[in-house]
Amino acid sequence: MTDQRKAVVLLSGGMDSCVSAAIALQNHGGNVALLHASYGQRTQDRERRAFEEIAGFYKVDQRLIAELNYFRAIGGSALTDARIAVPENQLDASGAHGSAIPVTYVPFRNAHFLSIAVSWAEAIGAGAIYIGAVAEDSSGYPDCRPEYYRTFQELIREGTRPETRIEIVTPVIGMKKDEIIRRGMELDAPLQLTWSCYQGEDLACGTCDSCLLRLRAFAQAGVPDPIAYGQAKPQNNK
Amino acid sequence: MTDQRKAVVLLSGGMDSCVSAAIALQNHGGNVALLHASYGQRTQDRERRAFEEIAGFYKVDQRLIAELNYFRAIGGSALTDARIAVPENQLDASGAHGSAIPVTYVPFRNAHFLSIAVSWAEAIGAGAIYIGAVAEDSSGYPDCRPEYYRTFQELIREGTRPETRIEIVTPVIGMKKDEIIRRGMELDAPLQLTWSCYQGEDLACGTCDSCLLRLRAFAQAGVPDPIAYGQAKPQNNK
Repeated sequence: MTDQRKAVVLLSGGMDSCVSAAIALQNHGGNVALLHASYGQRTQDRERRAFEEIAGFYKVDQRLIAELNYFRAIGGSALTDARIAVPENQLDASGAHGSAIPVTYVPFRNAHFLSIAVSWAEAIGAGAIYIGAVAEDSSGYPDCRPEYYRTFQELIREGTRPETRIEIVTPVIGMKKDEIIRRGMELDAPLQLTWSCYQGEDLACGTCDSCLLRLRAFAQAGVPDPIAYGQAKPQNNK
Repeated sequence: MTDQRKAVVLLSGGMDSCVSAAIALQNHGGNVALLHASYGQRTQDRERRAFEEIAGFYKVDQRLIAELNYFRAIGGSALTDARIAVPENQLDASGAHGSAIPVTYVPFRNAHFLSIAVSWAEAIGAGAIYIGAVAEDSSGYPDCRPEYYRTFQELIREGTRPETRIEIVTPVIGMKKDEIIRRGMELDAPLQLTWSCYQGEDLACGTCDSCLLRLRAFAQAGVPDPIAYGQAKPQNNK
């Protein structure tokens, strides 16, 4: 039977998922289980460390790390195929990529994460799944849009036991990145433990899409980014 | 860009997926890629062998074996949790389980398989995914019904690149098991290489749901099952 008080939270270790976890912990009185996926992405070891540190900060013991060994074999993305370069300094003025899907898109990736979350939630009886997808002001991935999550919600209804009730919660999907930072700060979320960079593991590069979006968001929020960068932060990043 | 002539086929190594592969090979002139998943199920080594042997029979070189290491940690099913027994001799007169979901249901399993198939299909440009789900005359799993696949089709449209066109094909979903056998024999599908048993790896048990459904189907089709069983075949299985 489903316990609506319990939630599974997808925690990549980035800012959006960290703030989503902070919101879930508040909504569910600490009754959360944390899920992380390594999928052969360039920075998987660093992201996993961020996951562990954030989980430790919140003292959440119920954790699951899924290793998706097949994404490197599948390829098709700059994040999982070393032969495809991660773009640098390429954000356009609108903040993301206009209508084009960037080469960092990993084919149908979020369906894998959500499927694991649903399987786990059904097995442990959790009634909610939190995922930190951001629709706008983000990287332009098709599986970060609200329509996608509405359809996945329908898939859960069709594909689980009749008595299972699991709701997908996307608490930051409509926020701008700087709003996510402000919300995280209100909740005392450990943004200093998060990792966003697509290519660095010691120091964030400051030049990939994900670093640029992060740096611009901190600038817009008017607070310093607490993590260190490997090169001078772009002071005037577009 | 998607090539409608190429297909990804999910091949578990059971009869339904073997016959689905035979149909896909016919429809796509041999232009198929074969996908198999090991998910910690009891008979994963034997099923993988069946996959390799069927792929070898058809001389298909493009193969992907995905290892889903987290299903055992998730548990919640007799197939992936050694503490939950596989039911024996429990088919009801209707052939499956009436309306109850059996303990061999693996929470939301087929979404994982389909997600891998979609990621791979998008990366290699395949325009179709074949899956051997059977709605009736089967084990009563929620993720084997046509509605489920219609919703997943919509999810693919929402969650992939705008130019991607991938169709889910369920060629045996409306068939009875004995029709699947007859269709397989018409196509010279290698049913002797398939594996259905939920618990045996040397010889099929002949008593789990999956063996009972298989044996009854061969009896109804009026042909002998080409594989060996570890105990006397139930001659009069209900």
